[in-house]
Amino acid sequence: MADSGRVIVTMGPRGAFELREHPLPKLEQGTALLRTEMCGICGTDVHYWAGYRPTIPIRFPGIMGHEIVGTVVEQNGGYLTDALGRPIKPGDRIVPAPLVTCGACYWCQIAREPVKCLNGKAYGHLGDGYPYHTGGYGQYLYLCLPGTTVFRTDLPPEVAVFLEPISIAVTAVDKVRVNPGETVVVQGTGNIGLLCLAVAREAGASRVIAVGGPAARLELARRFGADVLIDIGQISDPQQRIEMVRAHTPGGHGADVVIEAAGVPAAVPEGIDFLRYGGRFCEVGHFADAGTVPINPSTHLCAKCITLVGAWSSLPDSFARGLNILEAAKYPFGDMVTHRLPLERTGEAFHALSSDYMLDGREIIKAVIAPWE
Amino acid sequence: MADSGRVIVTMGPRGAFELREHPLPKLEQGTALLRTEMCGICGTDVHYWAGYRPTIPIRFPGIMGHEIVGTVVEQNGGYLTDALGRPIKPGDRIVPAPLVTCGACYWCQIAREPVKCLNGKAYGHLGDGYPYHTGGYGQYLYLCLPGTTVFRTDLPPEVAVFLEPISIAVTAVDKVRVNPGETVVVQGTGNIGLLCLAVAREAGASRVIAVGGPAARLELARRFGADVLIDIGQISDPQQRIEMVRAHTPGGHGADVVIEAAGVPAAVPEGIDFLRYGGRFCEVGHFADAGTVPINPSTHLCAKCITLVGAWSSLPDSFARGLNILEAAKYPFGDMVTHRLPLERTGEAFHALSSDYMLDGREIIKAVIAPWE
Amino acid sequence: MADSGRVIVTMGPRGAFELREHPLPKLEQGTALLRTEMCGICGTDVHYWAGYRPTIPIRFPGIMGHEIVGTVVEQNGGYLTDALGRPIKPGDRIVPAPLVTCGACYWCQIAREPVKCLNGKAYGHLGDGYPYHTGGYGQYLYLCLPGTTVFRTDLPPEVAVFLEPISIAVTAVDKVRVNPGETVVVQGTGNIGLLCLAVAREAGASRVIAVGGPAARLELARRFGADVLIDIGQISDPQQRIEMVRAHTPGGHGADVVIEAAGVPAAVPEGIDFLRYGGRFCEVGHFADAGTVPINPSTHLCAKCITLVGAWSSLPDSFARGLNILEAAKYPFGDMVTHRLPLERTGEAFHALSSDYMLDGREIIKAVIAPWE
Amino acid sequence: MADSGRVIVTMGPRGAFELREHPLPKLEQGTALLRTEMCGICGTDVHYWAGYRPTIPIRFPGIMGHEIVGTVVEQNGGYLTDALGRPIKPGDRIVPAPLVTCGACYWCQIAREPVKCLNGKAYGHLGDGYPYHTGGYGQYLYLCLPGTTVFRTDLPPEVAVFLEPISIAVTAVDKVRVNPGETVVVQGTGNIGLLCLAVAREAGASRVIAVGGPAARLELARRFGADVLIDIGQISDPQQRIEMVRAHTPGGHGADVVIEAAGVPAAVPEGIDFLRYGGRFCEVGHFADAGTVPINPSTHLCAKCITLVGAWSSLPDSFARGLNILEAAKYPFGDMVTHRLPLERTGEAFHALSSDYMLDGREIIKAVIAPWE
Repeated sequence: MADSGRVIVTMGPRGAFELREHPLPKLEQGTALLRTEMCGICGTDVHYWAGYRPTIPIRFPGIMGHEIVGTVVEQNGGYLTDALGRPIKPGDRIVPAPLVTCGACYWCQIAREPVKCLNGKAYGHLGDGYPYHTGGYGQYLYLCLPGTTVFRTDLPPEVAVFLEPISIAVTAVDKVRVNPGETVVVQGTGNIGLLCLAVAREAGASRVIAVGGPAARLELARRFGADVLIDIGQISDPQQRIEMVRAHTPGGHGADVVIEAAGVPAAVPEGIDFLRYGGRFCEVGHFADAGTVPINPSTHLCAKCITLVGAWSSLPDSFARGLNILEAAKYPFGDMVTHRLPLERTGEAFHALSSDYMLDGREIIKAVIAPWE
Repeated sequence: MADSGRVIVTMGPRGAFELREHPLPKLEQGTALLRTEMCGICGTDVHYWAGYRPTIPIRFPGIMGHEIVGTVVEQNGGYLTDALGRPIKPGDRIVPAPLVTCGACYWCQIAREPVKCLNGKAYGHLGDGYPYHTGGYGQYLYLCLPGTTVFRTDLPPEVAVFLEPISIAVTAVDKVRVNPGETVVVQGTGNIGLLCLAVAREAGASRVIAVGGPAARLELARRFGADVLIDIGQISDPQQRIEMVRAHTPGGHGADVVIEAAGVPAAVPEGIDFLRYGGRFCEVGHFADAGTVPINPSTHLCAKCITLVGAWSSLPDSFARGLNILEAAKYPFGDMVTHRLPLERTGEAFHALSSDYMLDGREIIKAVIAPWE
Repeated sequence: MADSGRVIVTMGPRGAFELREHPLPKLEQGTALLRTEMCGICGTDVHYWAGYRPTIPIRFPGIMGHEIVGTVVEQNGGYLTDALGRPIKPGDRIVPAPLVTCGACYWCQIAREPVKCLNGKAYGHLGDGYPYHTGGYGQYLYLCLPGTTVFRTDLPPEVAVFLEPISIAVTAVDKVRVNPGETVVVQGTGNIGLLCLAVAREAGASRVIAVGGPAARLELARRFGADVLIDIGQISDPQQRIEMVRAHTPGGHGADVVIEAAGVPAAVPEGIDFLRYGGRFCEVGHFADAGTVPINPSTHLCAKCITLVGAWSSLPDSFARGLNILEAAKYPFGDMVTHRLPLERTGEAFHALSSDYMLDGREIIKAVIAPWE
Repeated sequence: MADSGRVIVTMGPRGAFELREHPLPKLEQGTALLRTEMCGICGTDVHYWAGYRPTIPIRFPGIMGHEIVGTVVEQNGGYLTDALGRPIKPGDRIVPAPLVTCGACYWCQIAREPVKCLNGKAYGHLGDGYPYHTGGYGQYLYLCLPGTTVFRTDLPPEVAVFLEPISIAVTAVDKVRVNPGETVVVQGTGNIGLLCLAVAREAGASRVIAVGGPAARLELARRFGADVLIDIGQISDPQQRIEMVRAHTPGGHGADVVIEAAGVPAAVPEGIDFLRYGGRFCEVGHFADAGTVPINPSTHLCAKCITLVGAWSSLPDSFARGLNILEAAKYPFGDMVTHRLPLERTGEAFHALSSDYMLDGREIIKAVIAPWE
């Protein structure tokens, strides 16, 4: 085992990403150390870097990266089994769920919404002071938060890295519920949108419609289960898109379910217009505040009799079920990784994700950090 | 049995209400005739009169009135039992559910949302040409639509007249679900708001907060089960109301459930702000299009993880359960009737309900037509 | 159009199946006539023939056959569109839902369980006197029950004939709910069991375990989506089967969902033992009374915290969604048809299904009548 | 603060209850000490004493008592607020939820059934070795399990002592769901049955039927919300009871919901027979294994289309909502306490509860230990 590891420190709001070498901790009882193989860059990371997070303040400098895949280096009595009860030994690949909740507060125990845990801690979330080796943009991860949920897997890192993102899609589909044989629209063809397509398909949707773009993403959408592709670049009139969606639903009455994963406010009323009376809408795309949109309480909500659910973050049960979907290997998960970057290029990726998504001459669908490359 | 009956004919959009005498029909097989004792004036009636109805066009002239209570005059083989299987004989008081659905179309059979029935017909809804004696603003009601659901009751007419309105409140509470021990806010203290208070209380809410006004309605709200009254006339700052609501919830985290029955667009974002993370919101107040309101997909929906349901109209199962609540007599239902008017004064009531709700020197909470007075 | 058609009349409990020629009816307004291409023989038909039906008495002689596929011969103003609003013209293939409910009784309107309709009528159910051409074991079907729900399809008859059976499986999976990523066990590998495998897979099960036999059915089970096959002929000890199931579940804790489609009472406690604590069990296999089985209210129900649902019959919404699954063609539906028989051999099939399921030297999985062959 | 406290030690299966004086612990960081005012004797305690607990082995000698009410003596940085965020200071009355879960295992995180926590610990449950002052049958309770959920209340001890039991009833009603206006039957009129009556009433049942006895308990049942009382001593024929229940339901079709809280196996099929088709059944009464009962998978489950749920133990959210119901004071909770006993009489109470429930010449409904009397 090495004495130290390299790690990226984020210095401030839209500030520098410094590469440092830092000693490894002495493992306390009940902890373990991972060698990080890969860590995805999430859209929320970009917001964190900009200093934005709902409810919980961000503290700089700090360590980021929460879509983490690594292999076990050493266990000091911790993480000898995963959340499914399977044994873990050094060398095994695992994915930790980044959020660790207290299990005792109002949100954990009374409202049963642990993602709002009053005492929650998380790997790579910049909120817990300045501990090294606690986020994914580094060579090691110290599994030091008591009660971290971990999942063992033999999936290759470029697939396992989507376990955290697919847990978001599983949560969204669970909340909105998709019944076998229904028609589902997904708005947005970023990595969360693509994963929502696959999970909606897995949940039994017999027709899945992807609304997004550009062409390369739509082609990927088809491989993630979409039967119908609507390119918002080509069909720029929302009313026309609404008619197209309806034309693909039974009797033209509208879709049973719409999942908004584009993060654009205007997608919300448009998506509601995709729905049939009594349909269901899931808002999973607006992690960040992108402003308001006019909603008509009569025509969009009351007289349309919809059910609208917000989906936010995820809990370990969604990881467990998402892992099964990744392992079934029915969709080209790894093909979403367009950019595989060494630690040194973390800042470049964040700058690209903050502007036009272009890096190395091609559009980013998913950029990942491979800390040992 | 008389040969004819008096009936109010609505002549056109915001037009006259003509009182006419018209022959009674010869009862076809499977029908019955009611002597109408009372018929409530619903807010939707006022919109119909103005020519407004979502989706289904209105045809004038026509017969209105769908909150109907009457006694059976004659049965030609029809309606010998009610929907609960109880025998009906001449002289019995019954309440018909106004909407009659086909049971065979896409909405009845596939989407299982019969209120959108493609072939639906309804008493007092101005949509079915010009048949006399098919609405509640007249001395007789001809139960001529095959498959009309009727409920027998011994409640006095001024209570039974609320069966159709309370079915709306039951539908709203069913959709949003209230668990025993939860905190519920109802926005709006009109008759639907008051009934929602009672039904939320019946569904187990341990704290019920009414937001409305003026003082007389709030006093009634207290008698309908509200523990906390917030007078929007006195507390005109929404932010202050939000703080007041939160102060009455466990840990100040916000309400479990909010029911919007005010019909004012701005009530929607305010109501969402009343909620705790993960809370549930029911939009039942916007039968009519009152314009849009800015909603933030991030802070109101996604990052708040709410469930929002629209509730529209009602089905007979909600009548059946609403009848049980009316018969349990725990709330002063009859006291909502502020104006009991003869057929001749129908027009006056509609004009008052279209302006300032004042009639005979006092505010209308519920105006009913008593066709034999 | 012909003047008459051949039809099988069932003469009495376990009695003869007489082949008769009978004049075709003059079509009343709102009806249509089908040329029946194929009709499946359902396990319930065999019970009907034996004179057994829960609740509703059987009347002989009568016409049977309710898994009906046919093409439209003539429409007298009826069935010009299907339940999804798609136009129907002569020559189109359609599948009718056999049960037609009144839409007005306690079960239709109050309890919202229309399959118990007090005034329900059904094609091929022996209950409605002796009308010719009202069941599937004949050359023509008179679509004479007002409000019959029909579905247009271009599927070949040997697939379309499974629309009624798959609607049962959709109903079962809907009631028990399967979430993406869960482990599901199906007990029984008859045609309902096989369809439940496919629907559970479609609903997102990531591991599906089939418990049944013999080998040929299990091989089909694999093609209907089962990952794990347990042959009850080979593994005759229930305790061993329980251990095998558990070994295939996360942590050995047991399955999330079990669907009982074997119709053997002993399968119920065994199936509950397959479940994890908090698991869900669907009982869909016991149309017929096969006797009782000892259940322990503590260890099977209370201390295991299960949810157990009974699924009985189906409604048109399950047909609509089942049709989507059939049309997606992901499973070898038509391969379930082991016996395709002319009208004359109806009795032979019933006798075989009442004894050892052997006909023409091979086991029946699904026998269908092809009335024109 | 005293140096020591008296405590009852249970010596073995059906063994002695020894009264001992034991030193108080030095409070570790994050803990607190309660002065126990009252502790109920639960039916499960009697099973524990007999050495019976499903799944988890019992270790003797040990400390029992988990329905605990006490006032805070001292806090060493622990329990400064309750689960609802309300401040706690010395002298405040609190009720702890006895079960403390790890928040990290398969059951806590993946199956989301924390009552099965693999690492769960509990006050008064005999399982955790031999720590003094960790159960309710003693003068002090050491709040030493990290993450114990506690609730502050000003209710008198003889009401607050029902917080744990009512949490069971809230859990049961949540799982089976009661909609406003429905008819509910509760089987059993022990303290859990009585609390289920009240919670079902609170959840909106408009007709509540109690089946139990003897007369004194039924009279209490009436005060806990039952409209209809059926005395199993007087009506000893189950078939007659079934007819009586049905006669009190709409159309005689049967009850919407039945809650089995009698713990007698034969109550299960009888209770299912109380239900209408499509009704819901909750099994909450069989903590202990009382043997099997014959169930017919066809007539009881499949052809009746019921939903049956097992309810086992409870979680803190049910305490929070149960507390609201206790505090609303609509039912005579304290009147269930028939026997208030000093520590010395613990053994007497257990012997009575194991035989004929008679103590001091009257039947026990609820016996509580008051350790300072």
